[in-house]
Amino acid sequence: MRASKPQPQLEEIPESECVEILREHSVGRIGFVVDGWPQIFPVNYGWRAGAIVIRTASGTKLSYAPESQVAFEIDAYDAAAGVGWSVMVQGIAHNVTEAADDFSWTARGAFVHPLAPSEKPHRIGIDPVKITGRRFRPSG
Amino acid sequence: MRASKPQPQLEEIPESECVEILREHSVGRIGFVVDGWPQIFPVNYGWRAGAIVIRTASGTKLSYAPESQVAFEIDAYDAAAGVGWSVMVQGIAHNVTEAADDFSWTARGAFVHPLAPSEKPHRIGIDPVKITGRRFRPSG
Repeated sequence: MRASKPQPQLEEIPESECVEILREHSVGRIGFVVDGWPQIFPVNYGWRAGAIVIRTASGTKLSYAPESQVAFEIDAYDAAAGVGWSVMVQGIAHNVTEAADDFSWTARGAFVHPLAPSEKPHRIGIDPVKITGRRFRPSG
Repeated sequence: MRASKPQPQLEEIPESECVEILREHSVGRIGFVVDGWPQIFPVNYGWRAGAIVIRTASGTKLSYAPESQVAFEIDAYDAAAGVGWSVMVQGIAHNVTEAADDFSWTARGAFVHPLAPSEKPHRIGIDPVKITGRRFRPSG
């Protein structure tokens, strides 16, 4: 048997704090399935009134994400502090570019500033079903 | 009509360079599907002879990733330089912890140093089917 040393455990981040973290950031990743293959794409995003909103050109995201189950994730690791965290949103994506429903109307109000080039005239909103987060930090 | 200004375009990163980038990093994200829901988890990883290897405890990753189609992604954005890139691997995950096949044997040789706490005695290897990457940088 090895002597065991104290190990920090992952802690869950409460949903309300996950939302605060989502509001404070602007770069994440959207994941969805294309012909059976999970795919992950980095995106700039905005948050407004419970909606995560990204902008996109015509392409894979616009073709496959809307009306699908998607994941959205942000994370960070601070090597100096030894602290890491991640927040994951599971939700349904909708093309909110022109739709007249309340969710789309609200989502269109999110500020989203894409860093990547090319026109991105379409907006996809993610309506969260579940928001979870985890954090670890050094023990002692 | 608006006057158009020169727009940088996203450039594809050749597969050989994607592999170099994968070798140079150690933090990425694995994406796979759990009961119809795509999920994204940050992980430390190692690369050996064409295999991406992560370590994990018993849990969601070990229960759902092996023998499934998965995505693995790394990305970075340098705000000062205005340069962003991402590399995505699509492949099949295998539990390589004890299996005796060549892939598992090779994958077990990868160095993987998990930053997150808790024992992670299991190893999952991703056998790539497709490796793609994209980069953008300022024009002019």
